[in-house]
Amino acid sequence: MRPTLQFWFDFASTYSYLSAMRIQQAAAVHGVLVEWQPFLLGPIFAEQGWDNSPFNIYPAKGRYMWRDMERLCAARGLPFQRPERFPQNSLTAARLALAIDPGDQRANFVRAVFSAQFGSGRDVSELNVLSECLAISGASANLTGQIRAPHIKTALFEQVARAKALHIFGAPSFVVGDELFWGDDRLGDAISYAISI
Amino acid sequence: MRPTLQFWFDFASTYSYLSAMRIQQAAAVHGVLVEWQPFLLGPIFAEQGWDNSPFNIYPAKGRYMWRDMERLCAARGLPFQRPERFPQNSLTAARLALAIDPGDQRANFVRAVFSAQFGSGRDVSELNVLSECLAISGASANLTGQIRAPHIKTALFEQVARAKALHIFGAPSFVVGDELFWGDDRLGDAISYAISI
Repeated sequence: MRPTLQFWFDFASTYSYLSAMRIQQAAAVHGVLVEWQPFLLGPIFAEQGWDNSPFNIYPAKGRYMWRDMERLCAARGLPFQRPERFPQNSLTAARLALAIDPGDQRANFVRAVFSAQFGSGRDVSELNVLSECLAISGASANLTGQIRAPHIKTALFEQVARAKALHIFGAPSFVVGDELFWGDDRLGDAISYAISI
Repeated sequence: MRPTLQFWFDFASTYSYLSAMRIQQAAAVHGVLVEWQPFLLGPIFAEQGWDNSPFNIYPAKGRYMWRDMERLCAARGLPFQRPERFPQNSLTAARLALAIDPGDQRANFVRAVFSAQFGSGRDVSELNVLSECLAISGASANLTGQIRAPHIKTALFEQVARAKALHIFGAPSFVVGDELFWGDDRLGDAISYAISI
């Protein structure tokens, strides 16, 4: 059995963009499989008493995060454009990601959505942007018909419940066996752990 | 002129321990000078509405931090023991650090305090522990007489004001020129930046 790493992300999370763009290759080099696990931070932040992104609630933290993203993207050769609205509503994107079977098409879709938002500054709560991302991913355009389907709503609800059960409190998070790793900075450690067990 | 990196730390900060133990060697390899800048996070957290460590206010974050510290210390061969009380009152330690002239003795003292607290689990708000740290550092034991000296109180007050002016919101933080780097994970980036400008 190949070692597996769960990648938990919220489409509204800036640092999840960094991980989404490199995780597949970084894991593949070590023979590690990536499970792409979309979820929503909103309900988890709400339990911490936050009704907004901590980067908006705490201005010094937010100011730093945007500069940090700018520097990291430049260092990695990743396009970066700060979107006008932050955080964006990631509900529809998360549902669509779950509507796509796990595998390359889901991964392609996730990268397309993050690139549209943080590489091009577009609003990924808009259905026309998400439709473009679906087209790029190779998944069926008909999936937009499932956005309000009960089984997809339930699937996302269950993802949030799973994230809470895993003690996830931010994104990106990586889960390998019983270990939780938080933040793009821990991706390398998570992969190393995956191949060690 | 040798490139310089300001290292801003609070003695109560777990991740500052990680940086304190490696910064001098990591910087020296690249010919970078380290300025050891003690400050207090308390007044900065208070402005964010926190009257305690965020690791206590947000239990999932705290639970993760302790496990993360355990893993990182093991990987780096650093002793780690979770102190009974967290966060500890770091006021006296910070004042003593400022009472020691910048240089090797101050650096020795800082490492000794962090090691006592997070390597041995001791309470560094206790004067006898701090006196041992002074002895280890090579600084004069008489410095404990300055803990309530007006010029030392003022010096610490000014450190906090400087930290705020630098938009510091957490520890450890590294300042190089106009750039702020937050977290032990950014130490390498801060050093790289210092030698690039």
